Amino acid sequence: MTTKQIVLASRPKGAPKLDNFSFENVELDEMKENEITVEGLLYSVDPYMRGRMNDAKSYVAPFQIDQPIEGAVVAKVLASKSANFKTGDMVVGRLNWRQRTIANEKDLRKIDTSVAPASYYLGILGMTGLTAYFGLIDIGKPKAGETLVVSGAAGAVGMVVGQIAKINGCRVIGIAGSDKKIKTLKEDFGFDEVINYKTTKNIKEAIAQCCPKGVDIYYDNVGGEISDAVIANINFNARIVLCGQISLYNSIEIPVGPRLQPILLTKSVLMQGFIIGNYKSHFHEGMEQLGQWIKEGKLKSNETIVRGFNKLPKALLGLFKGENIGKMIVEA
Amino acid sequence: MTTKQIVLASRPKGAPKLDNFSFENVELDEMKENEITVEGLLYSVDPYMRGRMNDAKSYVAPFQIDQPIEGAVVAKVLASKSANFKTGDMVVGRLNWRQRTIANEKDLRKIDTSVAPASYYLGILGMTGLTAYFGLIDIGKPKAGETLVVSGAAGAVGMVVGQIAKINGCRVIGIAGSDKKIKTLKEDFGFDEVINYKTTKNIKEAIAQCCPKGVDIYYDNVGGEISDAVIANINFNARIVLCGQISLYNSIEIPVGPRLQPILLTKSVLMQGFIIGNYKSHFHEGMEQLGQWIKEGKLKSNETIVRGFNKLPKALLGLFKGENIGKMIVEA
Repeated sequence: MTTKQIVLASRPKGAPKLDNFSFENVELDEMKENEITVEGLLYSVDPYMRGRMNDAKSYVAPFQIDQPIEGAVVAKVLASKSANFKTGDMVVGRLNWRQRTIANEKDLRKIDTSVAPASYYLGILGMTGLTAYFGLIDIGKPKAGETLVVSGAAGAVGMVVGQIAKINGCRVIGIAGSDKKIKTLKEDFGFDEVINYKTTKNIKEAIAQCCPKGVDIYYDNVGGEISDAVIANINFNARIVLCGQISLYNSIEIPVGPRLQPILLTKSVLMQGFIIGNYKSHFHEGMEQLGQWIKEGKLKSNETIVRGFNKLPKALLGLFKGENIGKMIVEA
Repeated sequence: MTTKQIVLASRPKGAPKLDNFSFENVELDEMKENEITVEGLLYSVDPYMRGRMNDAKSYVAPFQIDQPIEGAVVAKVLASKSANFKTGDMVVGRLNWRQRTIANEKDLRKIDTSVAPASYYLGILGMTGLTAYFGLIDIGKPKAGETLVVSGAAGAVGMVVGQIAKINGCRVIGIAGSDKKIKTLKEDFGFDEVINYKTTKNIKEAIAQCCPKGVDIYYDNVGGEISDAVIANINFNARIVLCGQISLYNSIEIPVGPRLQPILLTKSVLMQGFIIGNYKSHFHEGMEQLGQWIKEGKLKSNETIVRGFNKLPKALLGLFKGENIGKMIVEA
């Protein structure tokens, strides 16, 4: 069987470009015992993928030149040599960016689209939701009455973080990059205030105004100068959750900024980086809680859907230009 | 009664100088009910005092111009209107830098010099020891076989940190500023390796060589470029204990350096600032453990004693030049 795939053509220097990717046809091997042939329906694009485009040791192996990009994909089973999957099943897994592919049964998980739309399993009920949940609950430890600031607030994770913080009784301040995003976050997702970092001259001052009692939790998706402005308003015993640093992912030089240790020290602040894989053994409880909140109408999803398998590279690049509100998904 | 005191004459810009202090005679009030007249014997000088010389909001109030400096002092009771103290008792407390002073009973604690030398109550059995203990145990969470790096290793806190890490089965690497300090740390205090940051050209490389398995715990007393070099060698799931930033205390501009968040994120590192006051309710258990280790000969003290009350400002300034090995104390 022949299928189309998207491979890494070259490693980007700075911002990735479309020509870092190329499309090619590939002949798939025969399906073996315990393998399943699937057709990709929904593809997740995520900021962390930028890191995998570099040839650098990190928590996930880099993509290889001339090898397919991989990411979370919702797919439909076309044929199966596994007792656990049958034709027509809907599944999710980390798969190659191919229109069709063959996967081992251990790399796929069945999803129930009667419980939630298929796209949720890439977002709010997938790694996105779990990232928001564990980062906020386990590291941020929100308490009623505290003030939380989340950067990248209109991104897939940020939007869920803000809602979970509201469920926990926090005052929630978002930082986002367009008036449309701000309107969505305030009107549809219950954020108390949202700062437009593109039009606000003094972000530090704006945060001080929105957070008269200071910042108790900072859930950071972007890093850079926005983080400097938030940390300048940080409270004694605050928690800083390091989830993403999207503003720095395309840096060529090592980014430089004010040293943080003096303020973290004098204010007894905790700063903790994490990757969602650390919580693997707790995924089940996270999923259950997220599902419960969705059922109760306390937690909502927002997605930006791009249509066409061929648009995958463009959609990924769009993340770095803030083109998405909520989870960015490519529908094949 | 007239006594000599040392007051803050002016606030330093950058490194403090002797003329930021002045000596004067002061007439003490009459001793009231529940008060005690004491004579200072041993005075502690500590890096955190530099922060109190600035007019900046922090976790302790700034010293006031023309008002006495205060710090931890071991003193002898000369006269008492408190039922809890009698003439001749040895006490410790946060007291003004005066040769004699009058204190309220609630600000003094009796010490037993038959258990340990009086100076220990300013160092290894005082805030210094507790700072080393709680920072390392509660935040650093040392496990046998892990590698710990401590900066300011020959300082009062650093020397205790290294010893407690050894007790917990860690490989211990110190960073210090003279060959004499290195000899003391390795020969008398059991450090596995000590790097001389003043003579080592590439500290990052030196740490990599001393820590072939990477750095699991970094107990940071100094900050700045030394910390950059350590953090460049940090392991997945490492803990960074922010105890001091002595290299930055005299900065006039806001210190700038490589942004830390990307590395903390990709390596799931925890960085936690703390002040010893956070652990107040646990001081008793800390003291008991430290006392036990001292009794067992597992924990040793080292002190740099400067003689003469008049030398207090000079001794404090000496901390920033690395003039001490272990706890710096002024004996009146």
